Amino acid sequence: MRIVVLTGGIGGARFLLGVRAYAREVGAEVTAVVNVGDDLLLHGLQVCPDLDSVLYTLGGGADPERGWGRVGETWTVRSELAAYGAEPSWFGLGDKDLATHLVRTTMLNAGYPLSQVTEALAARWQPGVRLLPATDDRLETHAVVEDEQGRRAIHFQEWWVRHRADVPTRQFVFVGADAAKPAPGVVEAIAAADVVLIAPSNPVVSIAPILAVPGLRDAVVGGPAPVVGVSPIIGGAPVRGMADRCLAVLGVECSAAGVGGLYGGRSTGGLLDGWLVAPEDAGAVVPDVTVASAPLRMTDEAATAAMVRAALELM
Amino acid sequence: MRIVVLTGGIGGARFLLGVRAYAREVGAEVTAVVNVGDDLLLHGLQVCPDLDSVLYTLGGGADPERGWGRVGETWTVRSELAAYGAEPSWFGLGDKDLATHLVRTTMLNAGYPLSQVTEALAARWQPGVRLLPATDDRLETHAVVEDEQGRRAIHFQEWWVRHRADVPTRQFVFVGADAAKPAPGVVEAIAAADVVLIAPSNPVVSIAPILAVPGLRDAVVGGPAPVVGVSPIIGGAPVRGMADRCLAVLGVECSAAGVGGLYGGRSTGGLLDGWLVAPEDAGAVVPDVTVASAPLRMTDEAATAAMVRAALELM
Repeated sequence: MRIVVLTGGIGGARFLLGVRAYAREVGAEVTAVVNVGDDLLLHGLQVCPDLDSVLYTLGGGADPERGWGRVGETWTVRSELAAYGAEPSWFGLGDKDLATHLVRTTMLNAGYPLSQVTEALAARWQPGVRLLPATDDRLETHAVVEDEQGRRAIHFQEWWVRHRADVPTRQFVFVGADAAKPAPGVVEAIAAADVVLIAPSNPVVSIAPILAVPGLRDAVVGGPAPVVGVSPIIGGAPVRGMADRCLAVLGVECSAAGVGGLYGGRSTGGLLDGWLVAPEDAGAVVPDVTVASAPLRMTDEAATAAMVRAALELM
Repeated sequence: MRIVVLTGGIGGARFLLGVRAYAREVGAEVTAVVNVGDDLLLHGLQVCPDLDSVLYTLGGGADPERGWGRVGETWTVRSELAAYGAEPSWFGLGDKDLATHLVRTTMLNAGYPLSQVTEALAARWQPGVRLLPATDDRLETHAVVEDEQGRRAIHFQEWWVRHRADVPTRQFVFVGADAAKPAPGVVEAIAAADVVLIAPSNPVVSIAPILAVPGLRDAVVGGPAPVVGVSPIIGGAPVRGMADRCLAVLGVECSAAGVGGLYGGRSTGGLLDGWLVAPEDAGAVVPDVTVASAPLRMTDEAATAAMVRAALELM
């Protein structure tokens, strides 16, 4: 059995823990296609938060409390950068994390594409799933905001980390998406998949940038595999993060039904065959999509594997 | 009074502490022209050991025990790079130190010349002397070695740090020197100087690469200021470092007289008007150079300032 997961963010990384557990049980192969829209250049280093969250989480190196970054992280470099007055100061790189970015940036500058760099980093972390960036090309999510400084586009991380999503926002744009190509192996993996899972990631800024890569959405929608999504919204609120603020920008209701509707039913031009929601959202209706419910709190690996099993029962 | 110091290495940085102390006493201005031959690109970061030694030492941030790097240094990034198997592994960057290289590299990549970057870094460290790299251009000291792997040129840091200078060596070459220009302000500072001091740095790999920048040696030799050197060799041995091994490559005796002779007397095409040696080397003779002796152990700032005073008495 071949499972492809479209994923991003911390929720997506945690979901993959369950997918891997399930896959080990049934002997399935897992390919994760990971959002790169959050990636940014910081102090000359290429930072890929979503890819790293997967590497650290599946590799046993993530901080379980904070959710992001490395366990036992230290912040010496951040303090020193602050002493130099180096900008941006609103995004702190941990010392352990920074080494990942040094290795990545050195390889990128030497000409290796991000997918090969990710494979090299995975040699250390042994995530147990195949990890592919959605694209090797530059694709950055920017928020078009409008405040007293006027209307302008800022990098998603500035919107999310610096402004805590608390600034009037008109839309999100995926800079570079037009010219991006799916990373090698992505379209092939989707074409060969027995199922495509949409992780309970932020639909607006984690999943949408993946689907914005030309050819990628078509590969999913036009492919042979059923597509099953897992709701990131439980009882009207995101499990973590600020999906509510992102959905508001799009005018989409922050609910399991709202996100299901945003993805849409595959038979009517949308993405989904099945949509897994939490028990409290069991009544959710998404036109042309089979909806089922199961507990969606990813409290531990077993609970998350049970979610995956429930999602696959929607195939 | 205007003092220009040609300097490199840890000995040079410590000497500058004394120059600054003396200059404060008499109200003199100090310009340090610093070796860049040791500079290297590590993990994509431009590392300038000699410039940083001056910044950290004069800025109160140097490790007094180790001599190089930052006091209270931590090594998290180094451990992480090792976990990735990143090469080179023989040169460890401390976490605090690394922030300096991040700031520098970001500025260099943005197009600022090294001299301006150095000025920006100095804004934090307030070294109290004007700090100029010998050149803004790439100039790297390489050692031409010959061992079981054959004859090849390796970067000075590989020779020094990895091989501890313990490999058959034919010569040193200053890669890029031919096309290098003195950094802005260097020639002007030398022309306006009341005295040029040669710090008790390694003559072969700290001072020679400075003088290898076309126009720089001529500015010193042809300039109006007397040139006084301070011997890095006391009683036939370097105070620290491996000047003995470097001198051996050139076939020069490791002695105060040997180094004085290597620099040569100015009236006969050499560099020096005066040469300050330690009391144990008081009998040293350098043709056409005035030799004097004074204690040369840089045990503290006052002792080092006294050395400077003794050197200036040779003017």
